[in-house]
Amino acid sequence: VARYLLTIQYLGTRYAGWQTQKNATAIQQVIEEALTRLCGGTVRVAGAGRTDSGVHARGQTAHADIPIAIDQRGLLLGINGLLPPDIRVSGAIPVRDDFHARFDARGKTYTYRIWNSSVADVFAAPTHALVPGQLGVEKMQEAAASLEGKHDFRSFTVIDPEVSSTVRNVERIAVKRDGARIEIVFEGEGFLRYMVRRVAGLLIETGSGRLDPSYARTTLEPTFREARWTAPPEGLTLERVEYEEEFMGS
Amino acid sequence: VARYLLTIQYLGTRYAGWQTQKNATAIQQVIEEALTRLCGGTVRVAGAGRTDSGVHARGQTAHADIPIAIDQRGLLLGINGLLPPDIRVSGAIPVRDDFHARFDARGKTYTYRIWNSSVADVFAAPTHALVPGQLGVEKMQEAAASLEGKHDFRSFTVIDPEVSSTVRNVERIAVKRDGARIEIVFEGEGFLRYMVRRVAGLLIETGSGRLDPSYARTTLEPTFREARWTAPPEGLTLERVEYEEEFMGS
Repeated sequence: VARYLLTIQYLGTRYAGWQTQKNATAIQQVIEEALTRLCGGTVRVAGAGRTDSGVHARGQTAHADIPIAIDQRGLLLGINGLLPPDIRVSGAIPVRDDFHARFDARGKTYTYRIWNSSVADVFAAPTHALVPGQLGVEKMQEAAASLEGKHDFRSFTVIDPEVSSTVRNVERIAVKRDGARIEIVFEGEGFLRYMVRRVAGLLIETGSGRLDPSYARTTLEPTFREARWTAPPEGLTLERVEYEEEFMGS
Repeated sequence: VARYLLTIQYLGTRYAGWQTQKNATAIQQVIEEALTRLCGGTVRVAGAGRTDSGVHARGQTAHADIPIAIDQRGLLLGINGLLPPDIRVSGAIPVRDDFHARFDARGKTYTYRIWNSSVADVFAAPTHALVPGQLGVEKMQEAAASLEGKHDFRSFTVIDPEVSSTVRNVERIAVKRDGARIEIVFEGEGFLRYMVRRVAGLLIETGSGRLDPSYARTTLEPTFREARWTAPPEGLTLERVEYEEEFMGS
């Protein structure tokens, strides 16, 4: 048995998110079924984090214990031959036996993509949220800057008994426009459930002029109830998960 | 009745190409049906050129005579509301009554996209041809350069009684790599049927080392039979069609 760190990309459109659940197809389950078939015995994968229904990933990670003798190339080609075309394993590297994809993760990057036009774009549509009215990127940048840093993001998530603290350190929220395309890049140690989509939703409201840029900081105050502007899932992509170098190599 | 020049984008995956035909859904037909519904009477569109089954467009153009009083914005929102999500009309501008999308076209740009890796990319897959073995871009560039200019591209097409000459002036064939992505940009006054995919196929053969870069020029010799390496349709996108300024404005 050898533990591998898998890098996984998927178009989340058809799936009920990362985590296996009843009555809906999850990405984790599809990968476990493919690995189980490849290895001829049950294989489980542990992801770095859940992504919600409809959310995409370019660099989700998960670890798995592979019970058969197979080299990296064989593992990669074998698993991809059994996966549907909207899920790919793009990398497989051996890691230490005590490596854990979730607990050893040191940072994550998400991108929220907006197609800001009255007409959707055929090529952008699967991975962008369509926002028709012209958004003011400078206002979005001003609001984003006030959310960077270590804050209690309680109002951006839902109560989860598994999560002990709602304080998170967000290193960067960068908003940039390229024609009709607006990208919001989020970098941080970790994010709470719905947090990225709720910050994106707040920034969209700000860009549209419905909220003042100075309003963003009030969402961090202890008395603030709920930042309930949740941007749609199709705009969100988990870009990468970072680990310390020491965990790599078998 | 007012003549409009429509700019159209589509993901060609589900369609039997641009041109309306029996027993298969073509993009032209889908647009004509939507315009006919919008206008409450038969509307035909004349495209700048046919694209083959599975080929995409970011800037296909077509002209149509719109029999109802409607402004540009209304036309754009109306037609897109009736089209499936893999076809969009991204622009509609009034043109002179004698304007013809095909006969007045002065230039076209196509891009052929290759994903050069043993593992497909979920996001690139719909618009890229997957080529697993490492391609030598410099070899492809050398072969491409020898095909630029005015040549008889007879060996890159099929006999078509509608086409009087197989001589075409190809202004540019630019090959560039960005990671696993290779793009071949074709610019010219016009291209023959299958020509872009057959040149792309020849360049892929050259990049793989199966053909020498110097072989490309022999395909232009009068004695050469057929450049039969046709690259798959999913890699090809019609990027734009150019017109003289004088035709614009009603």
